[in-house]
Amino acid sequence: MADAPKANPVRNSKASNVPPKWGISNGANAVVGQSGGPTGVINASLVGVIEEARKHPEIETLFGSMHAVVGMVKDDFIDLTNLSAETLELVAASPSSAIGTSRNKPDAEYCAKILEVFKKRNIRYFFYIGGNDSANTAHILNKMADEIDYDIRAFHIPKTVDNDLLVTDHCPGFGTAAKFEACALMGDDLDNRALPGVKIDVIMGRHAGFLTAATVLGRQRDDDGPHLVYLPERPVSMEQFLGDVDGVLGKLGRCVVTVSEGICDADGVTWARKLAEQAETDAHGNIQLSGTGSLADFLSAQVKSNLKVSRVRADTFGYLQRSFPGIQSPVDFDEARRCGREAVKLAMEHDNGSVAIKRLGNGADYAVELFRTDLSSVAEKTKPMPDDFINAEGNGVTDAFIEYAMPLIGELPRTEYLGGRPRI
Amino acid sequence: MADAPKANPVRNSKASNVPPKWGISNGANAVVGQSGGPTGVINASLVGVIEEARKHPEIETLFGSMHAVVGMVKDDFIDLTNLSAETLELVAASPSSAIGTSRNKPDAEYCAKILEVFKKRNIRYFFYIGGNDSANTAHILNKMADEIDYDIRAFHIPKTVDNDLLVTDHCPGFGTAAKFEACALMGDDLDNRALPGVKIDVIMGRHAGFLTAATVLGRQRDDDGPHLVYLPERPVSMEQFLGDVDGVLGKLGRCVVTVSEGICDADGVTWARKLAEQAETDAHGNIQLSGTGSLADFLSAQVKSNLKVSRVRADTFGYLQRSFPGIQSPVDFDEARRCGREAVKLAMEHDNGSVAIKRLGNGADYAVELFRTDLSSVAEKTKPMPDDFINAEGNGVTDAFIEYAMPLIGELPRTEYLGGRPRI
Repeated sequence: MADAPKANPVRNSKASNVPPKWGISNGANAVVGQSGGPTGVINASLVGVIEEARKHPEIETLFGSMHAVVGMVKDDFIDLTNLSAETLELVAASPSSAIGTSRNKPDAEYCAKILEVFKKRNIRYFFYIGGNDSANTAHILNKMADEIDYDIRAFHIPKTVDNDLLVTDHCPGFGTAAKFEACALMGDDLDNRALPGVKIDVIMGRHAGFLTAATVLGRQRDDDGPHLVYLPERPVSMEQFLGDVDGVLGKLGRCVVTVSEGICDADGVTWARKLAEQAETDAHGNIQLSGTGSLADFLSAQVKSNLKVSRVRADTFGYLQRSFPGIQSPVDFDEARRCGREAVKLAMEHDNGSVAIKRLGNGADYAVELFRTDLSSVAEKTKPMPDDFINAEGNGVTDAFIEYAMPLIGELPRTEYLGGRPRI
Repeated sequence: MADAPKANPVRNSKASNVPPKWGISNGANAVVGQSGGPTGVINASLVGVIEEARKHPEIETLFGSMHAVVGMVKDDFIDLTNLSAETLELVAASPSSAIGTSRNKPDAEYCAKILEVFKKRNIRYFFYIGGNDSANTAHILNKMADEIDYDIRAFHIPKTVDNDLLVTDHCPGFGTAAKFEACALMGDDLDNRALPGVKIDVIMGRHAGFLTAATVLGRQRDDDGPHLVYLPERPVSMEQFLGDVDGVLGKLGRCVVTVSEGICDADGVTWARKLAEQAETDAHGNIQLSGTGSLADFLSAQVKSNLKVSRVRADTFGYLQRSFPGIQSPVDFDEARRCGREAVKLAMEHDNGSVAIKRLGNGADYAVELFRTDLSSVAEKTKPMPDDFINAEGNGVTDAFIEYAMPLIGELPRTEYLGGRPRI
């Protein structure tokens, strides 16, 4: 998979004496798929691919593969070539994955079937919007196509609310989900001021704490919550957790806590797994715990039974975090769309790659440029929160994180609470 | 509590030979409180009271009582008389209760203490923003003040996300929460299209189904979810529930269900109570179920174990439903503010009352006028969904409900999904 820039459609095949088998004249086609969990802007990336593909006569038809690799195996495609401008804008503004998605991770046999379908339809460009698994799928497909001498250009477009991809400064999808978390906690903290007590919110992100960390981004006043933030990167014992909550209660008379669904006990085992194992052991009656509500309920029960506080509530935010409509971060939206376009541009010059974002300036000077990185550098692996984003106590974030994340979420609503005013 | 219009400050006291004890000249003051669960627009009503009170020289100082009746008993007040226009707009736009709230329901002894504080501060106007319990508090206070010949004007300003107050066409707070539900299900349904299976969402509203019903308001396409809607007004057996879900699965290959937290089994006992009782019986181990997640988990487990479907997910929306910032319904916001103003205007002419909304036109001609109703007609009682808003099967809503609710929520985002397009 050499990657020197080259004119399309001549492909720098490993077998250099093999002439290119495809080009403008024989109607090369492209496919795009959306993989893994939906986000608020994955459709903006899809639209970026669609609008850029139109500009390149090298691509005759752009197929949308229904439900990611599933459509590629089952030959289930729609035509994305001639959608109206109005439809495209509506799609770009919609959450979820407009051509469906899947969590399938194709193995070699699965990929062989995909390549059969690609051959039949003369699909020569493969664009895949997703996370590290999707980069890996592109990587495998590209290698297998090389092995059978089928010319294909395979590009990955980054997408994940978890923000856990390597190489790229941040992932499209994160900014919008982070904005949701910031807004949610702004409202929830005001609610907790109005009806004081302990409030615990369980946030998406099993392995990386970026989204849970983003719950702090709407803080406006010194004593705004969340007051404690627990990330999967820092184990927390029940003793520490309860001690922290008690400390905030003593100081403020209330406490708002955000917790990643992936937090671990001091022994490194996630609380979610411990609870699931315990629920299986306690297999009495009809009540069966799913992973959804139980961590929130468990933490809430621990606070209730160990601390002196009458009002304890807990919520698990669930799928709203990635699907709530109408709150896209403008920066995230724009970058997601640009990443889609960039993949198509890169595919005119390169054999394969993943689109990545480089930050050129921060704060008021925030700006980015896009670049190509190797699929192998993004495939499979994930990135945790850097150490300097997490406070020493392991129960909060640093200013470095706030400076990193703030430009990605766009403007937040402002709020006012009057309870801090002088008494008369 | 006679209510003939009369000029302020002469009060038509029951003891007609007793001269009015207060007026402009001796500095009558007013108090406003926010009671019960916060909403997205209860602060707009507060600002309505503040801005109208300024216009009336009969009111010298407007006290904000911190945490509803708690502040009135503890003499914990802030001065709302001289807030800047900018602050007022920020407050009005903020979710939650800007001067705190409480769920206390004052009895006679509690009210006697409140009246002591009122006397000390010469508080002669009482404005209380809340639900039916708050109307009752105003009613009790007004009667007790009469009994001790302390002149006070007591007004209730309606507020509830549940929309369950009598007399009024609808309640400020409902439109914004209904918009949240509509948006949430728009996104969640698109998510379920992208990753098909069964999705169950548990919605606020223990006794009235309006909010759960509002989850349908964002449906744009014929097969948009929620496909099934279960309300507290219609008992549902597990057999019917599973049969309904199976039917939708057979037809669409997916199913999105919204369920009120207050739904009952066929015997009229809520599922939540049955689960709580079972959880107490199964008091093994450390896992303790709160009411929060368990209904969602229970229904999800029932679907998983009884129907042929691999992907089942459930969420409980929790406090986000009433506290998410930045998504006020403009109609709801405007009406909430007008209700606050109207209470002050009415207090210049009447002894007591609750502000109610009358609908004058619907659809494109939607318009309302406000009127005074007796406190006793709103106090304590609640209103369920009318029968003609619920379908015959007890698993959905009628067009009559949609026509009723649609004008209250304002414009929704539009979305697009491409999976319905022809295959090529």
